[in-house]
Amino acid sequence: MKILVINAGSSSMKFTLYSMENEQILAKGLFERLGYDKPNMVYKRPDGYKFEAEIPVKNHVEALKKICEKLVDPEDGVLKSLSEITAIGHRVLHGGEKITAPVKIDDKAKEIIRECFPLGPLHNPANLAGIEACEEEMPGVPNVGVFDTQFHMTMPPEAYLYAIPYDFYKKYGIRKYGFHGTSHHYVTLATAKFLNQKVEDTTIITCHLGNGCSMAAVKNGKVIDTTMGLTPLEGLMMGTRCGDLDPAAVIRLVDLGHTTAEVDKILNKQSGLYGVGDINSGDMRDMLAAAEKGSERAELALKMFARRIVKYIGAYYVLLDGPQAISFTGGVGEFSVPMRKRIMDQLGSLGLKLDDGRNAECFGKAGVISTDDSSWKAIVMPTDEELMIARSVVDTLHLK
Amino acid sequence: MKILVINAGSSSMKFTLYSMENEQILAKGLFERLGYDKPNMVYKRPDGYKFEAEIPVKNHVEALKKICEKLVDPEDGVLKSLSEITAIGHRVLHGGEKITAPVKIDDKAKEIIRECFPLGPLHNPANLAGIEACEEEMPGVPNVGVFDTQFHMTMPPEAYLYAIPYDFYKKYGIRKYGFHGTSHHYVTLATAKFLNQKVEDTTIITCHLGNGCSMAAVKNGKVIDTTMGLTPLEGLMMGTRCGDLDPAAVIRLVDLGHTTAEVDKILNKQSGLYGVGDINSGDMRDMLAAAEKGSERAELALKMFARRIVKYIGAYYVLLDGPQAISFTGGVGEFSVPMRKRIMDQLGSLGLKLDDGRNAECFGKAGVISTDDSSWKAIVMPTDEELMIARSVVDTLHLK
Repeated sequence: MKILVINAGSSSMKFTLYSMENEQILAKGLFERLGYDKPNMVYKRPDGYKFEAEIPVKNHVEALKKICEKLVDPEDGVLKSLSEITAIGHRVLHGGEKITAPVKIDDKAKEIIRECFPLGPLHNPANLAGIEACEEEMPGVPNVGVFDTQFHMTMPPEAYLYAIPYDFYKKYGIRKYGFHGTSHHYVTLATAKFLNQKVEDTTIITCHLGNGCSMAAVKNGKVIDTTMGLTPLEGLMMGTRCGDLDPAAVIRLVDLGHTTAEVDKILNKQSGLYGVGDINSGDMRDMLAAAEKGSERAELALKMFARRIVKYIGAYYVLLDGPQAISFTGGVGEFSVPMRKRIMDQLGSLGLKLDDGRNAECFGKAGVISTDDSSWKAIVMPTDEELMIARSVVDTLHLK
Repeated sequence: MKILVINAGSSSMKFTLYSMENEQILAKGLFERLGYDKPNMVYKRPDGYKFEAEIPVKNHVEALKKICEKLVDPEDGVLKSLSEITAIGHRVLHGGEKITAPVKIDDKAKEIIRECFPLGPLHNPANLAGIEACEEEMPGVPNVGVFDTQFHMTMPPEAYLYAIPYDFYKKYGIRKYGFHGTSHHYVTLATAKFLNQKVEDTTIITCHLGNGCSMAAVKNGKVIDTTMGLTPLEGLMMGTRCGDLDPAAVIRLVDLGHTTAEVDKILNKQSGLYGVGDINSGDMRDMLAAAEKGSERAELALKMFARRIVKYIGAYYVLLDGPQAISFTGGVGEFSVPMRKRIMDQLGSLGLKLDDGRNAECFGKAGVISTDDSSWKAIVMPTDEELMIARSVVDTLHLK
């Protein structure tokens, strides 16, 4: 059984083809700069073969056509025919309140994705374009939507509502949705397995630290709180996003003469590590290197980044009534030994202590990084959103 | 020694006259509706005497004149002459970064208050008007400014900076300042005394819950973090203020067609308990009564209110590396036995448990409300911002 996973962005299309018997990747790659000049395609096989070229395509449909050609190419391909693809899984950003699990795509599902355009104005139209490209190119192959928001839909109202007039929730859907759900879900399941427990019996803080960063408090496999909100801007400090901010500061920025589009750009693209660190980068590795070399602003950015996480760990520790584990994932969470140390070294009051040796060993691989005498566990758990989507397709279509 | 404390708002002027030998109130009261039709004056003595009348005054100077007349009135007054007043303390909202302690008012201090007009556009001009009214009415009597922000100025940069482009901090002072500082300071000192410890040896979470709500993490007598931010809008859910909110939600509200003035009003005056609770009130007592009678929205508002506090307690517990005490203060903190219970019942994982009997007893009076086997203490500690200002005047002017 072969599952294709598609993640269509506004100007990009990522793909991963899985053989599900052993959950192996057969091929993966992406198109970038879709709709701009000089679109670029990358296609890779696990045997190390890599194809990269400028390919003139105008949109998602044309990009998908090229991807499909490559997959069945006599020399570069991994399939004899596209008919070998059993089903296709699509990452969709926003499912609003109606989507609480992956769904087989039909007219109703597409209508819900469309209804959520105002909530995910950049992503949802692109995600739908990716779905419709697949319907056109591979008619008859079932598509499944896996939504970034769905895993968070178990939050109780006291967690997802903002303390603004209730009408803004009812009329415009202004509430906390949460994102990175596929990653939080994958890591929750993987952590339960790692702990040798049923997920229903676990209480876990999942901490996804990449360019975007978010945390979730997961009780018995269900999210009860998360840091991102109406949009992926709220919560932790990120590579270029501000995270938590006095709402009045946004009003101030507009009153200073910025349009809302400019404020949106400032807070999403020019803030976070990038905005504070003064090294023209929002990359954690650059920031750590700069701090090492004595940059005070880089050091400040790192302290701020860690402090926000530490505060939310405290908050979620209480909400979970003392969790069993915290799992670090995402590029920073999996690989940044020094950032994990900065975070962990502040958690002594919660009975959680870092084992420096274990921390150094866990570079992009699963493992416990806390000491044996800690009262709960800190874990590194690599995430895999594409595989989670592929598995969700199998489950949703009852393919096993 | 007699100290007059003045709290001048945009359309009000509160006053309290102290005899500092025994810290007794000699008289207190307020003017309301200054600048509107039918201004109202209330004047009270501790013996129970109360005067209330509509008095046509136009501004703070005229209001102060009436207050002074009353204080020396042969029948209603408590002074033979205004010359008995040793000094005057003024509550000032915003001192920016320059004010870290109470200051004797001179031209330079007034200039700083003026510089902070953009940071406290409603309060600072009124506070300055109150100071200038006193200078005019009681020339030669020293004035001292006590600022709502000053106690928080010990926060480290990683606590007070937002993760927005650094230039917005340098150019416009957009950072976390914190408010309610006089209350947090008073309660910190009172809690240390209550614990029979030097304040330098304490770690305390102060939790001021009134119509406005804020918390502070206070280490060795110095604030290291607080919930309010650039303005008093950030942080906890309040009577009519939203507290924490995805910054993108503010952008959304503006994009929906609201002016920034309208958004400011929505988030400051129509949100919080009022905005969620659906009972046309932001008062905690009303909300508890409505929930008791079965209002689901009131119950929801109460859950949200408590949850935010619980999350910040977890965050500050970690930042303080396990504090010695949490002190509840403010109208809700001192008097709301059921809200304290809702909060405290969620803190078991931090080793803090409520003693229901003690909680019921502490109605507006100091006392421990946690069980003896708790690993730290929960305390009720009535605040007294006016007395704190009066004491600050004495200290600042070296009157003892």
